[in-house]
Amino acid sequence: MWKVVVAVSSRSQITPLSGFPEWLPEQRMVEQELLDRIRRLAELYGFVPLETRAVEPLEHLVHQGETSKEIYTVGRLQGDDEEPDELGLHFDLTVPLARYVRQFRGHLRFPFKRYQIQKVWRGERPQEGRYREFYQADLDVVGDGELSLHFDAEMPGIMHELLATLPVPRATVLVSNRRILDGFGAGLGRDDTTEVVRALDKLDKIGAAAVREVLCDQVGMREAEADRWLGLAAIRTPDTGFVDEVEALGVTDDQLARGVDELASVVAAAAALPHGSVLADLHIARGLDYYTGTVYESIIEGHADLGSICSGGRYDDLASGDGRALPGVGVSVGVSRLLGRFLGGGAIAASRATPTCVLVALVAEETRDRSAATARELRARGIPAEVFHEPLRFGKQIRHADRRGIPFVWFPAHGAADGDSVRDLRSGDQVPADATTWKPPERDLRPTVEMVA
Amino acid sequence: MWKVVVAVSSRSQITPLSGFPEWLPEQRMVEQELLDRIRRLAELYGFVPLETRAVEPLEHLVHQGETSKEIYTVGRLQGDDEEPDELGLHFDLTVPLARYVRQFRGHLRFPFKRYQIQKVWRGERPQEGRYREFYQADLDVVGDGELSLHFDAEMPGIMHELLATLPVPRATVLVSNRRILDGFGAGLGRDDTTEVVRALDKLDKIGAAAVREVLCDQVGMREAEADRWLGLAAIRTPDTGFVDEVEALGVTDDQLARGVDELASVVAAAAALPHGSVLADLHIARGLDYYTGTVYESIIEGHADLGSICSGGRYDDLASGDGRALPGVGVSVGVSRLLGRFLGGGAIAASRATPTCVLVALVAEETRDRSAATARELRARGIPAEVFHEPLRFGKQIRHADRRGIPFVWFPAHGAADGDSVRDLRSGDQVPADATTWKPPERDLRPTVEMVA
Repeated sequence: MWKVVVAVSSRSQITPLSGFPEWLPEQRMVEQELLDRIRRLAELYGFVPLETRAVEPLEHLVHQGETSKEIYTVGRLQGDDEEPDELGLHFDLTVPLARYVRQFRGHLRFPFKRYQIQKVWRGERPQEGRYREFYQADLDVVGDGELSLHFDAEMPGIMHELLATLPVPRATVLVSNRRILDGFGAGLGRDDTTEVVRALDKLDKIGAAAVREVLCDQVGMREAEADRWLGLAAIRTPDTGFVDEVEALGVTDDQLARGVDELASVVAAAAALPHGSVLADLHIARGLDYYTGTVYESIIEGHADLGSICSGGRYDDLASGDGRALPGVGVSVGVSRLLGRFLGGGAIAASRATPTCVLVALVAEETRDRSAATARELRARGIPAEVFHEPLRFGKQIRHADRRGIPFVWFPAHGAADGDSVRDLRSGDQVPADATTWKPPERDLRPTVEMVA
Repeated sequence: MWKVVVAVSSRSQITPLSGFPEWLPEQRMVEQELLDRIRRLAELYGFVPLETRAVEPLEHLVHQGETSKEIYTVGRLQGDDEEPDELGLHFDLTVPLARYVRQFRGHLRFPFKRYQIQKVWRGERPQEGRYREFYQADLDVVGDGELSLHFDAEMPGIMHELLATLPVPRATVLVSNRRILDGFGAGLGRDDTTEVVRALDKLDKIGAAAVREVLCDQVGMREAEADRWLGLAAIRTPDTGFVDEVEALGVTDDQLARGVDELASVVAAAAALPHGSVLADLHIARGLDYYTGTVYESIIEGHADLGSICSGGRYDDLASGDGRALPGVGVSVGVSRLLGRFLGGGAIAASRATPTCVLVALVAEETRDRSAATARELRARGIPAEVFHEPLRFGKQIRHADRRGIPFVWFPAHGAADGDSVRDLRSGDQVPADATTWKPPERDLRPTVEMVA
């Protein structure tokens, strides 16, 4: 009589959608834990939370010529004429930030430090590490009119701590400054370094010899100049040592000098971190052309092929428009790419497949109230607990817990002289216990997330 | 030389999009806190987290005839012929759950208890409490083949606790069972109760006299029958007292008896909760026709006009297809609707506008390292702290903190004999302090969220 409205009508429709990854609950627990750690760190540093709508006027999105082909448009199945805006799904969190800051400028407090963790969508061809729907986690500081270099200098420390808080191998933060490449070019008489930057960007992939060839054959420079560019790009120091090395290349330019100064400040501020965790690395440039000063990348030990999973930089103006510029500096973490590698590959896992810490056994239907009261007692003290749903024999109830990795099974008293007891399924130890006072070890309270090996 | 790619090109584009609410950061903090509380409660009860992709094949979505006009379709701006699926944004979390459970059936553990907190999209005409993008928080238990009534019985307790954990006025949970209305109709010789249910659904809005008119004039029943229906719908008891009241109406039917029995079990299980927090209320039916047994609603004291912000029920089969049925029972919380009323109206607020607990003053540019080390020390012990960015005079730094509601300003030692000190901006008290041991009162560590009035 009641028809089931939610119906999956044929088998063919439940194949996965390529590029739209979905996790099992125990994997989602890992993803949540990563997002929680990023959030916790951002909040420790005083970044305020922001969430913007998923859609932006299409006009805003396509303004970024290069990415237009990747944009997902949004329309109504049975739209009417009243829809004033053509909409698209955001493909990053920077475009929405720019729009948001201009829209709410009068209500925000500057410097505006915000973090934002949301899904973004790109219609790219899916491949390993490239998704059509994925998480980004962004941290930015936006100034109203101006923004102290101090915020650039603080960022490598935040990146270092952020990466250290994630269950991934040791990471190194790389820093440079766009003014160095630009100024170096200007000092050599080049006022457009686009092609040079593009060539140097390939260093990691194709190596110095091949880049040298590109610089000579395609960009059309002489070998001596190519060598100087390669010399610059090869500079990598764990401290301000890079300053002398740049000077030794014998190129003079104001922009270059300013870039070197700024980078020196940023690298010096990282001196309190473990030696080698932040490097001045002059070959990094970040492909996108909106960075104007400091640029950041990061590499995870043993996973250089993954590329930079935490990167960003300084931009002169987040959202040009009326009034003063909105300069900013920020980084973005490619959470889904990181999870695709480490979670998909099984290198990170949760300690159990459910939040439940205690399964309260159901002795008999008549004593369900007792079991329910026990679970309620445990939950009231913050211990995740659930009652088994049927009075099956204990062996079955224990197996149910075991299969989910639930560490404890609680047995309410069921004899006359008996008291409650709790069994640790790992050791098999069963001890008398009182639901109003018993506590699990701290490490068992909630599932933990660790690298597996 | 470097062009700014992220640009908002004209003023007209930064008007808000109707139906797509966005919060200020201090409001987002409230939203986050609510979502966190829902999540915490779900996990305490052992629900596993799930997140599904935002898009579903359009074919799945439109299968629900009634809602097809509200669906947002998704396409690629420059799509190619390789796109096999037409896609749409999900408009609830039940359709994705149905698809997910069938797709991953072999990898899930049943009974599958999952919670899911995500944005959903509907192209409805925006109005107060109706958005085009909004949060839903769902809790469901899905069985493979069968699902014990015990899960229906547990739900009112979860709803009660969930609503009590939110910073809103006292809420009451209402429960009924679809079999009661159906069976009552069958007992009166009606095999289709659709029109009757639709009329009774309007009781809250138009009152008994008007419903009586609808039943007589439109449905075409005699006054005596209309009175019996209204008598049934008026039954509301805080315990199993409703059983006798239904019996007194003198209608006999198997479905009716089964519905009464099931409802009695569900209501009896709530006996441990404060008296009156769960009511058997026979007029609720839930408009959607996929519920087949227990149905739930809730009302917030003083906000009956808001409608039910936590509702749901039992369904016989979540996703029909090959193999056994997937019965389930669950509820959905309309988080955005709730926030629209209480947060938008200013009734809930965060205790401060930033996570920061301590602003460390910057004495001079030369001692920035000291201030940075102090902030690092505090953060290492979980205290959100940031350094003021410029060595302005202390009055300005204090004002910066005050405007954001940051409770403490830390002054690093800056005289020879001086030690560090910390000032509570609310009392003005300033005391000597050591960054390696000092702690704020627990209530100041993170922003808290409370009802304002």
